[in-house]
Amino acid sequence: MASNRKMLVLGGDGIGPEVVKEVLRVVDWMAKKRSVSFDLQEGLVGGAAYDKHGTPLTDETLADAVDSDAVLFGAVGGTQYDDLPFEVKPERGLLRLRKEMDLFANLRPAMVFDAMADASSLKRDLVSGLDIMILRELTGGVYFGQPRGIDDLPDGTKKGYDTQVYTTPEIERIGRVAFDLARKRDGRVTSVEKANVMMSGVLWREVMTNLHKAEGEGVVLDHMYADNCAMQLVRNPKQFDVIVTDNLFGDILSDCAAMLTGSLGMLPSASLGAVDEVTGKRHALYEPVHGSAPDIAGKGIANPIAEMLSFAMALRYSFDMGEEADMLEQAIQNVLKSGLRTADIMQDGMARVSTTVMTDSLLKELDK
Amino acid sequence: MASNRKMLVLGGDGIGPEVVKEVLRVVDWMAKKRSVSFDLQEGLVGGAAYDKHGTPLTDETLADAVDSDAVLFGAVGGTQYDDLPFEVKPERGLLRLRKEMDLFANLRPAMVFDAMADASSLKRDLVSGLDIMILRELTGGVYFGQPRGIDDLPDGTKKGYDTQVYTTPEIERIGRVAFDLARKRDGRVTSVEKANVMMSGVLWREVMTNLHKAEGEGVVLDHMYADNCAMQLVRNPKQFDVIVTDNLFGDILSDCAAMLTGSLGMLPSASLGAVDEVTGKRHALYEPVHGSAPDIAGKGIANPIAEMLSFAMALRYSFDMGEEADMLEQAIQNVLKSGLRTADIMQDGMARVSTTVMTDSLLKELDK
Ligand SMILES: CC(C)[C@H](C(=O)O)[C@@H](O)C(=O)O
Ligand SMILES: CC(C)[C@H](C(=O)O)[C@@H](O)C(=O)O
Repeated sequence: MASNRKMLVLGGDGIGPEVVKEVLRVVDWMAKKRSVSFDLQEGLVGGAAYDKHGTPLTDETLADAVDSDAVLFGAVGGTQYDDLPFEVKPERGLLRLRKEMDLFANLRPAMVFDAMADASSLKRDLVSGLDIMILRELTGGVYFGQPRGIDDLPDGTKKGYDTQVYTTPEIERIGRVAFDLARKRDGRVTSVEKANVMMSGVLWREVMTNLHKAEGEGVVLDHMYADNCAMQLVRNPKQFDVIVTDNLFGDILSDCAAMLTGSLGMLPSASLGAVDEVTGKRHALYEPVHGSAPDIAGKGIANPIAEMLSFAMALRYSFDMGEEADMLEQAIQNVLKSGLRTADIMQDGMARVSTTVMTDSLLKELDK
Repeated sequence: MASNRKMLVLGGDGIGPEVVKEVLRVVDWMAKKRSVSFDLQEGLVGGAAYDKHGTPLTDETLADAVDSDAVLFGAVGGTQYDDLPFEVKPERGLLRLRKEMDLFANLRPAMVFDAMADASSLKRDLVSGLDIMILRELTGGVYFGQPRGIDDLPDGTKKGYDTQVYTTPEIERIGRVAFDLARKRDGRVTSVEKANVMMSGVLWREVMTNLHKAEGEGVVLDHMYADNCAMQLVRNPKQFDVIVTDNLFGDILSDCAAMLTGSLGMLPSASLGAVDEVTGKRHALYEPVHGSAPDIAGKGIANPIAEMLSFAMALRYSFDMGEEADMLEQAIQNVLKSGLRTADIMQDGMARVSTTVMTDSLLKELDK
């Protein structure tokens, strides 16, 4: 069956390939049971690409990614790569994809599944029903700013440096995404920086404030310092709706938020580019929030749900298949309700299952 | 009574002056009951200094601070100063003190008081008995790195930028403090950076590793990425002993850790300079972790305990008065055990008291 749904599958390292494989079973199911087919391609990234090609991302794979409608990404990294030079570390593959595909908007929902409210380290009433969206700028800031390097100083010591930098257009485009997201949610955006210390933060706050005046109809905008935001996430996460912040703060705050849901093995993310004015398409990459988890790789016990939900985001944001996304998300809720758990989310009284058995049950749910 | 215990008292803004005032009652008590006197001086900082002098820190006050054995600091900031130009914002007063006094080592204990284990948003068993030390580098990194600024670009937009920079000696000196602290505690140091993304992080990890080989006897050193550290703090804070990290990560992670103790209004901090090889003295500033809390300022309900414990740290680190420090800390424990609580830490079944009544009881405890 012909299709223009081009999806590049990059399993990567550790449990990445294991959980991606499970999603491909759902893709198969969609083709067989709903006559929706995808044009799939597979590739290597991270340590796996390094092992084969000496680089964590080949130019060919990058070209395939740019050419696709969506990249389904697993995870990268592993202890065996810890001593590789900086420029060929597994992470560079992911960072290069983000940068070259211009995936500036990273959507990280932090939500608590009904079945999982007790799994949080926070008290139940603080997190049950939690549903916040962390929007992280993904292609700017200290991750890519120039100059950066390690210089030898005359006295024999060294200096390591990085540049944190944001321009007005970079801040505006992520701000617009934040406002758009908020309008479909609770209408509140908290913009997070360190404007009391950093000049990039001063500009960030100024641009967000102006953008809000010009284009923020229907949205309430607040500002918060990053250190306070970390506190507030721990104190009372439900106070937030959409949090928008820069690349580095977003890295830390979204991980903090993800962990406090207690549902880390179940959280997806989407990294989106700008919508092309001609084709109406946008570059996109979908990946679970959890990493490569080398300690449990190869054991068949990884939780495939975060990768499944990442695929659901792809259905929604890249393939205009909201109905199938809903269906998949509902099936996941049902499987959880039925008491099945992978090891990472195991609770008293539940049934512990392997990666594949989790997917088996999910497919059965979809069949219903 | 003559004394060379020179202490500069800078109450600052919001609840700062209120809690500092309570400590001065303990200082009085020490003079009367233990014949230990301090050579006290008071000054303005932050918004209070700006209101009077047009600057958040005058050169005279800075000179007094440099000349003192310890600065007892309250807090700075308030909404009425939000629109001041960056260079005269209240925070600049504090940042200038840190930089000019070269207070590179910021000790932020995150501990849970027995009486307070239920006040945490984390489940009780995850935090009860928690006692970790976050050591934050305080005079380097993106807080002070050059160049920094906001430039107008040719196309009419702007660029805001900051420089994150660390040198070998800067990393080594904070690493030494971490190892020293760990030796008096559980012997474990976790060094935190983003060596997978930042060049300053690559150097940080390299220098810590080398320093550990050369001078780390009796200490186990681990490395962790900052995003993972935020997660691990939420997941299981008791896994840590000493965390050492840079200025920006330290700002966020120490606030996160402070909040999860549930004892925010009770946490002190010490900011220390290098020990002078001739005099054996070091510059030092002591301040509570909580800020100026403008919303409760002037109401007489602020919790004075964090400032009291900051003074206890001053007794221990600057005045070699470990016995008095123990005494004060014990008195605080006893007052809490007796059921007194200020509003911020109020719990069912306890007695809610004002700032001054809390101190009254403390003085009575000291009298025993
Ligand atoms: C793997 C690493 C480079 C990456 C990052 O720091 O962005 C990861 O932590 C993430 O959040 O996706
Ligand atoms: C007030 C502010 C400049 C300061 C900082 O960012 O260092 C504060 O958050 C702190 O942690 O002491």
